[in-house]
Amino acid sequence: MMSDHVSRNIYLEDIPREQAWERFSQVLSDNGLLSPLPAESVPLNLARGRVTAKPIWARRSSPHYHAAAMDGYALRAQSTDGVNDRNPKLLTLDVDCTYVDTGDALPDWSDAVLPVEVVEVIDGGENIRIFQSVPPWHNVRPMGEDIVTTELIIPAGHTIRAIDLGAVAAGGNASIQVVRKPRVAVIPTGSELIPAESDPEPGQIPEFNSLMLAGQLESWGALATRWSIVPDDLERIQQVIHEAAVDHDLVLINAGSSAGSEDFTARAIDAIGQVLVHGVAVRPGHPVILGIIELAASGKTKGKKVPAIGVPGYPVSAALTADIFVQPLLRLWLGQSSSAPPMMEATLTRKLHSTAGDEEHVRVTLGKVKNRWVAAPLSRGAGVISSLVRADGILVVPPGSQGVQAGERVQVRLLRSREELEQTILVLGSHDLTLDLLAQYIAKHGRRLSSNNIGSIGGLIAINRGEAHLGGSHLLDPETGDYNVAYIRKYLPETPTTLVALARREQGLIVQAGNPKGIGTLDDLQREDMRYINRQKGSGTRLLLDHLLNSSKISPETIEGYQHEEYTHLTVATAIASGKVDCGMGIRAAASALGLGFIPMESERYDLVIPTEILHTSLLEPLFAQLNDPEFREAVQALDGYDASVMGDTRSINPD
Amino acid sequence: MMSDHVSRNIYLEDIPREQAWERFSQVLSDNGLLSPLPAESVPLNLARGRVTAKPIWARRSSPHYHAAAMDGYALRAQSTDGVNDRNPKLLTLDVDCTYVDTGDALPDWSDAVLPVEVVEVIDGGENIRIFQSVPPWHNVRPMGEDIVTTELIIPAGHTIRAIDLGAVAAGGNASIQVVRKPRVAVIPTGSELIPAESDPEPGQIPEFNSLMLAGQLESWGALATRWSIVPDDLERIQQVIHEAAVDHDLVLINAGSSAGSEDFTARAIDAIGQVLVHGVAVRPGHPVILGIIELAASGKTKGKKVPAIGVPGYPVSAALTADIFVQPLLRLWLGQSSSAPPMMEATLTRKLHSTAGDEEHVRVTLGKVKNRWVAAPLSRGAGVISSLVRADGILVVPPGSQGVQAGERVQVRLLRSREELEQTILVLGSHDLTLDLLAQYIAKHGRRLSSNNIGSIGGLIAINRGEAHLGGSHLLDPETGDYNVAYIRKYLPETPTTLVALARREQGLIVQAGNPKGIGTLDDLQREDMRYINRQKGSGTRLLLDHLLNSSKISPETIEGYQHEEYTHLTVATAIASGKVDCGMGIRAAASALGLGFIPMESERYDLVIPTEILHTSLLEPLFAQLNDPEFREAVQALDGYDASVMGDTRSINPD
Repeated sequence: MMSDHVSRNIYLEDIPREQAWERFSQVLSDNGLLSPLPAESVPLNLARGRVTAKPIWARRSSPHYHAAAMDGYALRAQSTDGVNDRNPKLLTLDVDCTYVDTGDALPDWSDAVLPVEVVEVIDGGENIRIFQSVPPWHNVRPMGEDIVTTELIIPAGHTIRAIDLGAVAAGGNASIQVVRKPRVAVIPTGSELIPAESDPEPGQIPEFNSLMLAGQLESWGALATRWSIVPDDLERIQQVIHEAAVDHDLVLINAGSSAGSEDFTARAIDAIGQVLVHGVAVRPGHPVILGIIELAASGKTKGKKVPAIGVPGYPVSAALTADIFVQPLLRLWLGQSSSAPPMMEATLTRKLHSTAGDEEHVRVTLGKVKNRWVAAPLSRGAGVISSLVRADGILVVPPGSQGVQAGERVQVRLLRSREELEQTILVLGSHDLTLDLLAQYIAKHGRRLSSNNIGSIGGLIAINRGEAHLGGSHLLDPETGDYNVAYIRKYLPETPTTLVALARREQGLIVQAGNPKGIGTLDDLQREDMRYINRQKGSGTRLLLDHLLNSSKISPETIEGYQHEEYTHLTVATAIASGKVDCGMGIRAAASALGLGFIPMESERYDLVIPTEILHTSLLEPLFAQLNDPEFREAVQALDGYDASVMGDTRSINPD
Repeated sequence: MMSDHVSRNIYLEDIPREQAWERFSQVLSDNGLLSPLPAESVPLNLARGRVTAKPIWARRSSPHYHAAAMDGYALRAQSTDGVNDRNPKLLTLDVDCTYVDTGDALPDWSDAVLPVEVVEVIDGGENIRIFQSVPPWHNVRPMGEDIVTTELIIPAGHTIRAIDLGAVAAGGNASIQVVRKPRVAVIPTGSELIPAESDPEPGQIPEFNSLMLAGQLESWGALATRWSIVPDDLERIQQVIHEAAVDHDLVLINAGSSAGSEDFTARAIDAIGQVLVHGVAVRPGHPVILGIIELAASGKTKGKKVPAIGVPGYPVSAALTADIFVQPLLRLWLGQSSSAPPMMEATLTRKLHSTAGDEEHVRVTLGKVKNRWVAAPLSRGAGVISSLVRADGILVVPPGSQGVQAGERVQVRLLRSREELEQTILVLGSHDLTLDLLAQYIAKHGRRLSSNNIGSIGGLIAINRGEAHLGGSHLLDPETGDYNVAYIRKYLPETPTTLVALARREQGLIVQAGNPKGIGTLDDLQREDMRYINRQKGSGTRLLLDHLLNSSKISPETIEGYQHEEYTHLTVATAIASGKVDCGMGIRAAASALGLGFIPMESERYDLVIPTEILHTSLLEPLFAQLNDPEFREAVQALDGYDASVMGDTRSINPD
């Protein structure tokens, strides 16, 4: 047995997703664990969001009686035969006719209503005079007009909506049979984990996967139980899995699902059951374990079998594993029909390389630029949890494919509604804090700002390719001292473009708090005791540094760390704050945010770059309106090192 | 004052929707009642579905330390300069380097990791030999790689999803500020109302609007409190509104919002506040009241103002009023950005007449037939609650328009996802119980069956117009005794069509239980004491009756009730069960469902009529697969009066 464990733990399998699901579901099915869970009765006020276990039939008609549809006089239609203006008729009240309000039950002997407006009450209310005939059933809502007893109201497997409740109640159902909610245990394991609320030391990892998994489970209609963190201890893990299985339908163990020396999940499942799949050809999410355990306890749970899934530890892998393997299982248990997720066709902005036989799930952002939907891949890292928040959709690259080319049409599974994406403004290029502020302000006008930092020049290239609505740019032209114009002429030579200034901001050297190394000028970067951290090529900040070095006749080779590139002001500042490096170029606000020192070098202009063609579209309109809002200008001015006086200054480049 | 009340109550205004909203929201705004509600702090495990009151910023970087990205040896990158295969180097453990697992914190003095696989451990573990150099920061996940302290994680006004929780927690937030849930009181009023759970007498109306309204409110993020039914008593209603306003943000009063003698809502609001709007030019939902009340009580609620809405009583009107006036208010209170609802363009199947200056909200069904989305209007009745369940979308016909023509392209607000609608099979024509069964079975294969009863001939016409995928038909050709073929040649002369039999079923006369009037043959329909109920023209049952009458040389004029038409077997049976009529033609199953008597006349074939062109599409495939399922055949056979032996028999008409 032991050698078997060891070998399994060293080599992960690489089973195609569909085959893995088949192997897993076959065993569940053989053990009677794939059919819908039992039904339970819930009163209607608790029924919303629950899934019907059986069709709901009408137990009562609606209306449940013949009802007057007008205020008027119920009578026998026959008694009005031949009546007209020239031939009126007298009817005796409470003998030939009777007064009814709308909704009142028709007396048994009557079969029509004559509206009060066309009747004359005479003889002190003893009789009425009528001037027209009425056919049988006129001005009557007949019994069952809306719903007839025995009629189907709601099919099985339907998730009850608020507007369903009326019809269900009208059909005489005070409670309904719904599928019991699947109960799922979520067990976080790992000696390096600490509760998310605590303050972690280096090397400790805040445990939040269980929070995210529980949220996913609940959004799919399950009840989730989160366990406390279990340390890496095979026996303890076994024991907790067993304990959880007693009153849960499914046990998720997160993580320890890989093949390292501290990865106990497969061994634990194997010890009290069977590992069916260990390693699926999906990225992120490769080290998945699909298994089944059997309860040894005496009593009524003896021999109970419960599926167990080892969920990988990286948060993106964990979320994806839940999507791929847990959600389909829950749908089967809830008796929901298989449903196609919302998809959208889009054009891929850059090439995706294949990943050696694995099915890859790539997070993308989406936007509609000039009537074309474009999908831009986000980080592929399984640990980059922020990419899950930013993602608008998931693109599945099938296994064995040669990757996907830039410009190819792809199918993307949506994580946001198409309508929200229609209102999304894509900003690519250099990031600036004003964009975050702007995002807040325009959200009130129903616009969403999705910005991605790819450097100023990257933004111009993206605009040229129709991959962004606008760019953020701060590219110094050393020859003129002006910003952006020369670069637009170079990178967008044929595109009529409008430059709209957002702000001027201070650039300089970010240094340790208090500037302990006494950095004063760029010459200091050449010092032996100096470790610099640089920005990436194509960023405005890099261009500025290179220009300044050139002016000062300093060779980049003389600066240690010049090759070490980061992508944002804040990551540069973070590296400095961590003490690993001494100095890097960036904006004052980044230094202030992390409490670092700052040596100013330049006041630069940060512009929005917009193809003039889309300047006056309804999508962008609220954005420009914002630039005239005094409250917004003040908020920008209040940022450390910002000058909002240029805001809204506009220039046309390459006019038509 | 009183005369003022009376006049308001007699004449409803007819204010355009936008104007009504403006008048209402202006007063709320003047009273400071339109801004977002106060924030409250919730722990992350309760945050899903809540709306952020403020932007969520990172309070901690993620990773919050420089972490080893591989199992290996942390070292100074500089110390590996010049090392290669031919020039290996010895490093002393715990002096020059130290072992780290993936995720471990890098020691302060190190800035890179050399993977364990490329290192040779020697001297009993005292030293390692390395064969390659490593640049600084390689195999390291630097602090802040994912999230940097002070970075924006989630904007304000965002509804927290499960996958957001990971990033929020990773950014060091153990709890977040969300907007307090709006508290809404729902007060059902009406002396004719009884609780939905009770068994109503004729004239009593089960109260379920509050159930539906509360469900809507909760699905929009509010807390709903349902009051007990309040009888039509002005003082009592005033008192309850006042009581509810003390600790709610909004009071909904349902109904009494119209202008009848028993409609007290406007008077009640006026007595303790102000009616701002009474009557909006929207159908259904015209008698809406928008108002504001002021608390007279002493203590801290003194002078508190609370909006109050009089919601019309018809259930469809009630649901729509909540959609139109309550949801936008809740979005403002929750600080959510205005959002476009999901829309779809579709072709309208039949003309909609205008409704004299009112904006009309028409419920429609939707389906995609031959790559064209079609929208078919459902009942316009405000009381037909079943139409809300069946509706796939809402079409808004603007006020003052000339109606909408059949064949026009219209914009429909979706009530189901586009993906669900893509999997919807539209069946128009005659309804049969087998269709309900079929709907259940094919739901398991991800298909939804949407059927609408417009009679057999109606179905053929709809197919010819491309408004349905298939039809249900049982049209007897008296000349041949065969079913459907002759009618397809007439109504679908140029369409290659396939007939697929579902079942044979018994048609006959449905009579009172025990047949108290001793009905034996059609001749009895001519008797003086006989009241007949007929089916509509174009239905197979009507054709059958007319054929049988013709064969027996009975003139329709001799049958009382021949002109009285119903649209389904079940509504015919219901009319008979109510005692209002004696007899009608229909299928045996309808008689059995309501415990009525049945005199068999004919065994008829019920066919599905399908354009051959779409017979083999993936949409319809699961439907035909079902016809060979023994379980399904048995279920049909078990229906009263059904013979499933013909099921699946196929004939081609008008082959290509």
